[in-house]
Amino acid sequence: MHYPRFAARFAVLVSELRGKQVTVIGHQRPDADCIGSQVAVCRVLRTNGVDAVCVNPDKVPRRIKFLVGDTPFFMRDEIAPQGRLAVFTDCADHGRAGDKVREMYPAPIACFDHHISNQGFARFDFVDTASSATAEVLTGLFLDADLEIDRVTAQALYTGIMTDTGQFRFASTSERVFRLCAELVARGADPALAGAELYERESFGKLKLLQHFLGSLKMECGGRVCIGVLPQGIFDSIGASVEDTEGLVDYARSIEGVEIGVLIEERTGTIKASLRGMQSVYRMDTIAAQFGGGGHANAAGLNWPGSLAEFYPRLIAALTQRLNEVDAALQ
Amino acid sequence: MHYPRFAARFAVLVSELRGKQVTVIGHQRPDADCIGSQVAVCRVLRTNGVDAVCVNPDKVPRRIKFLVGDTPFFMRDEIAPQGRLAVFTDCADHGRAGDKVREMYPAPIACFDHHISNQGFARFDFVDTASSATAEVLTGLFLDADLEIDRVTAQALYTGIMTDTGQFRFASTSERVFRLCAELVARGADPALAGAELYERESFGKLKLLQHFLGSLKMECGGRVCIGVLPQGIFDSIGASVEDTEGLVDYARSIEGVEIGVLIEERTGTIKASLRGMQSVYRMDTIAAQFGGGGHANAAGLNWPGSLAEFYPRLIAALTQRLNEVDAALQ
Ligand SMILES: [Mn+2]
Ligand SMILES: [Mn+2]
Repeated sequence: MHYPRFAARFAVLVSELRGKQVTVIGHQRPDADCIGSQVAVCRVLRTNGVDAVCVNPDKVPRRIKFLVGDTPFFMRDEIAPQGRLAVFTDCADHGRAGDKVREMYPAPIACFDHHISNQGFARFDFVDTASSATAEVLTGLFLDADLEIDRVTAQALYTGIMTDTGQFRFASTSERVFRLCAELVARGADPALAGAELYERESFGKLKLLQHFLGSLKMECGGRVCIGVLPQGIFDSIGASVEDTEGLVDYARSIEGVEIGVLIEERTGTIKASLRGMQSVYRMDTIAAQFGGGGHANAAGLNWPGSLAEFYPRLIAALTQRLNEVDAALQ
Repeated sequence: MHYPRFAARFAVLVSELRGKQVTVIGHQRPDADCIGSQVAVCRVLRTNGVDAVCVNPDKVPRRIKFLVGDTPFFMRDEIAPQGRLAVFTDCADHGRAGDKVREMYPAPIACFDHHISNQGFARFDFVDTASSATAEVLTGLFLDADLEIDRVTAQALYTGIMTDTGQFRFASTSERVFRLCAELVARGADPALAGAELYERESFGKLKLLQHFLGSLKMECGGRVCIGVLPQGIFDSIGASVEDTEGLVDYARSIEGVEIGVLIEERTGTIKASLRGMQSVYRMDTIAAQFGGGGHANAAGLNWPGSLAEFYPRLIAALTQRLNEVDAALQ
């Protein structure tokens, strides 16, 4: 058993849903773990006598469309909520799919998730914060319950785990992660396909944006901080989109000796910044909070009204102070 | 059993080596699978009554030093070969550790490997070309034989598998790969540590080189080929080393629609080029051979005497012809 504490409750849920109409809901700006989990829940429910469809507030991104297969996906307003039970996947709270979805589905019957901030908001909550991905929780539940996992489901779950573990590099990459991935590959998941679709379909604009970001990198705080800046207008001038900034900040953080990586975007009258720490002790969330932002200890973000000339020295001052505090605490 | 056809032979080898002096040898320019496999063989033999040490023709690279721990490693000439039996790991043939090592150890007792070109050159060959890594073969052999795998050995084997599968993205990433990784994590391997040491210790020079490479990218052959050029003198001017070119060509190949990625380095009177195809049908090895080079169907390289101005149009002509041939064959 991978999740013994969930097994009985999950069996009750499946039997309660049998013969019902179910909407499987993912969060705004969906990632592969979100879409993969929706695909998996929807297909497994359908195989077990449930009339399930997936509903999303935002479109399935180009890169992860390959996961969907023949799974029924709809936009939020294409499906009337009347008479349908709602199952949320990869959502830390009831509002993560947007206010409108929360109003349409005010009483979720189930929630599958792994976010640390999830307090539970459904009748049946399956939240395991030690799991790397919602897809990991689902894989374990399905195997524990001896439910059939078809090839499309296996690929969707595998891809959710692959992306939410950062290609098996985050601290959440456990023995169980590998055991479950072995089971998914045995059921038809193709790791090479997932890798090619997610990481080998870059746009030319994204690589040009990376080029500019790398060219802007500056070491600060004695080489312990690395900051890159994307100036206003860069997206238009090189034909990149705002989504193309995904992953850029990791290049700043990946340099030897760097403890904190920062990406700054100049926007009209606003500064947007992403902060990444190598360890949770740097508390990126509290640094971001000083500028009205927030997030996790290792990864946080902010939007600040002002210019780069005002923001930059303030950020350096905040980071310098934090590094000094960490140094003092470690002595 | 992970490798049933090897089990009996492996048991005979271990008992023959007991009480003997053994040199565990890796190939020139060692990678993580090579060093990881040497660490593992050496430690497991030592635990089983063998006086084993590791010997290499080249130094252990900075990035993979963390695998070694307290395993005894020596340079080729620091250990006299007299009275020592030689075990080769990750070497496709007897000469892969250099001519000198071949002369010093003319009759290897064993070889552990996964290269497709390995014809066998030892008394006991353990070559499985369907395996992703030599570390995969070794993990399976040790588990099948119920030999103890300590924490350092587990980390070394895990890292060899992680790197030789391209972070679990190559086609060789099988169900067995994940099963074995689960066993290694259970024995103390830390995936996050391996990821951080291998992929989050970039030099500033490497990122600057990447920046220049990205800035030089040009689409050719209707967007099916992407070529980047590193001009002469670039390494000195930005403080990068020749090793920093590792992985650059993958950025050219990773662009959506690109079937062949190329990295060209201008050197004094010489052109060095790396070719990467998305599929083996493009036969990068035979393209490289037209310029005196060689390699694999997906990845090949060449050194060509001449200038960029002479080389570039010839390369485009060769690639255009190949793309046309592939198109014709697929019709
Ligand atoms: Mn997730
Ligand atoms: Mn290898």
